[in-house]
Amino acid sequence: MSVILEPPYTFPEKPGPVVKPGEFVFAAMHLDHGHIFGMCDSLIKAGATLKTVYDPDPEKIASFLRSFPQAKVAASEEEIFQDTEVRLVAAAAVTCERCDLGIRVMNAGKDYFTDKAPMTTLQQVEAARACVRRTGRKYFCYYSERVHTGGGLFAEELIRQGAIGRVIHMDGFGPHRLSPACRPAWFFDREKSGGILCDIGSHQLEQFLTFAGEEDAEIVASRVANYNHPEHPAFEDFGDCMAVGKNGASFYFRVDWFTPDGLRTWGDSRTFITGTEGTLELRKTVDPAVPDMVTNTVILVDKEGEKRYTLNDKIGYPFFGQLILDCIHRTETAMTQEHCFKAAELCIRASESAIRISPKA
Amino acid sequence: MSVILEPPYTFPEKPGPVVKPGEFVFAAMHLDHGHIFGMCDSLIKAGATLKTVYDPDPEKIASFLRSFPQAKVAASEEEIFQDTEVRLVAAAAVTCERCDLGIRVMNAGKDYFTDKAPMTTLQQVEAARACVRRTGRKYFCYYSERVHTGGGLFAEELIRQGAIGRVIHMDGFGPHRLSPACRPAWFFDREKSGGILCDIGSHQLEQFLTFAGEEDAEIVASRVANYNHPEHPAFEDFGDCMAVGKNGASFYFRVDWFTPDGLRTWGDSRTFITGTEGTLELRKTVDPAVPDMVTNTVILVDKEGEKRYTLNDKIGYPFFGQLILDCIHRTETAMTQEHCFKAAELCIRASESAIRISPKA
Repeated sequence: MSVILEPPYTFPEKPGPVVKPGEFVFAAMHLDHGHIFGMCDSLIKAGATLKTVYDPDPEKIASFLRSFPQAKVAASEEEIFQDTEVRLVAAAAVTCERCDLGIRVMNAGKDYFTDKAPMTTLQQVEAARACVRRTGRKYFCYYSERVHTGGGLFAEELIRQGAIGRVIHMDGFGPHRLSPACRPAWFFDREKSGGILCDIGSHQLEQFLTFAGEEDAEIVASRVANYNHPEHPAFEDFGDCMAVGKNGASFYFRVDWFTPDGLRTWGDSRTFITGTEGTLELRKTVDPAVPDMVTNTVILVDKEGEKRYTLNDKIGYPFFGQLILDCIHRTETAMTQEHCFKAAELCIRASESAIRISPKA
Repeated sequence: MSVILEPPYTFPEKPGPVVKPGEFVFAAMHLDHGHIFGMCDSLIKAGATLKTVYDPDPEKIASFLRSFPQAKVAASEEEIFQDTEVRLVAAAAVTCERCDLGIRVMNAGKDYFTDKAPMTTLQQVEAARACVRRTGRKYFCYYSERVHTGGGLFAEELIRQGAIGRVIHMDGFGPHRLSPACRPAWFFDREKSGGILCDIGSHQLEQFLTFAGEEDAEIVASRVANYNHPEHPAFEDFGDCMAVGKNGASFYFRVDWFTPDGLRTWGDSRTFITGTEGTLELRKTVDPAVPDMVTNTVILVDKEGEKRYTLNDKIGYPFFGQLILDCIHRTETAMTQEHCFKAAELCIRASESAIRISPKA
């Protein structure tokens, strides 16, 4: 038994651009969630060329142009749909509108990259599946808590290398800071946001399918509650869920809006993975109450000892370049279409079947 | 926002003996689980006088006498039951026999202190409740993961002081190392051990009732599996459970026998408590992949910042002295009788209603 800080590891170099300027053109539209900034920035770093932006709200356009002054403002969705140079549309619409938008994008012959959650109803999942079959276009989702975190990508690689044996169980905690003053009205509307299990729960189910190598899963039990936000009675400030993969790996996750103000980041995102030969703990956002602000700490315990990898931002994000190349070559390297839809379907099932806890004051 | 290591805190001095030598006499019997050592040692430190020991197995007696040479060997249970000087019997019998033994002890007019889990069937819980009512004797249980850990006691105190507001949710992880060669045959027999949710799950439900201030709870869903021990087909190497308190606090726990050999201790016991005003994380057994072996790390995050308390063994265990005084004064300071039984009842309900996952190899 030993403790090893910074064990040696190999990981591919940070990926650079996968295409030359102008080779892969995309547009942004419907800027309702701030995730659109990370999505566009990452596509651009991977070589994509941002040509146009559209949103009905001039304030959102103005804010977008401060980060992406190169974007030309389009007068309508239609203007972008008609532009044959645009291959991909990136969008972060109000959650319940993401699927309809995706269908319009795909019907216009373009691939679609939406913020999570990608849909809010099972009907939408089926409509999107049908549209993909009909048009041959792609519906990508920005499951950022894995594809845009070094800890998530590194864990995937460790599991692939057999570091913890066969994955039998995973626990995920996704607490978030509410900051109610910064939230638009639709955020508090369950019909529009999909509810907490669909919204921030989508990251969790996507990670489970990936880390456990499961293609499908069943929701065993799920719950939601409004513990402390009586001013928004229909709002869900807590949710949790037990699921089991088709091959038998078990999963639990909890999401909530109770990140205390004193935490240095938006939430203490934590993932625990139990394998037959070892365990992994991911502290992606912060190692709480450690003086240095470190992100993407991965703790591996195996038969040899306890190993701590402090990754910070050493690991790049190949997802975005893979997405671009998937669009160009019609491959499924970044993520399979069915994986994207299955994660969406499961978080909707969890949300729809949830028991609502009624706490006594 | 700030990070504070070793924030100032006040906690009562480590308790000393509460009675004088000979004032409170107890006996030990049925030494089937090693917890009997911690139970006796702690009672002695709290002032109790160990008079006699009984076990049908001379090897177990010999091993016990190496730690407690002052104990006189009794020839039978009956000899101890007849001894009017003995007030309390401490025991760690095979789990399924703990209740019958307790009933014999209480019928002999003595109080009973058993290792956890205190029972394995609901019939036993009712029989014990009835016997307590009839005899007026006490049935204590050694829920060591709270009452014998500084982290657990400190968390209770922080919650009592309002450090995290109202407790709305708790997550507990209780992984344990299997060390199969050191386990008796009954350990692998579900009928005898009660199954994983009853055995190591009992700690978890007891902590939930305590930390959330709940008197009762309902099991929402529970699962068990044998993921990787085909040589013991009926053995449960994994279990988890969702429960909800009568007042609405929610709870999830996971227990398993997958502690990797490289961990410096038997398991990375972890508790996460979410309150309306802050969060607590307890790392009672180890802070994994930190070079110093520290125990009982408590991380409090509140509106001010992130605070790390490194307690190691600075905090004493008032439970044992309180238990002695409860026996003398017929009070319920250490733990109420109903709390002890309710935690037992809930872990049995979790075990009896558990779905069994059938993993594909």
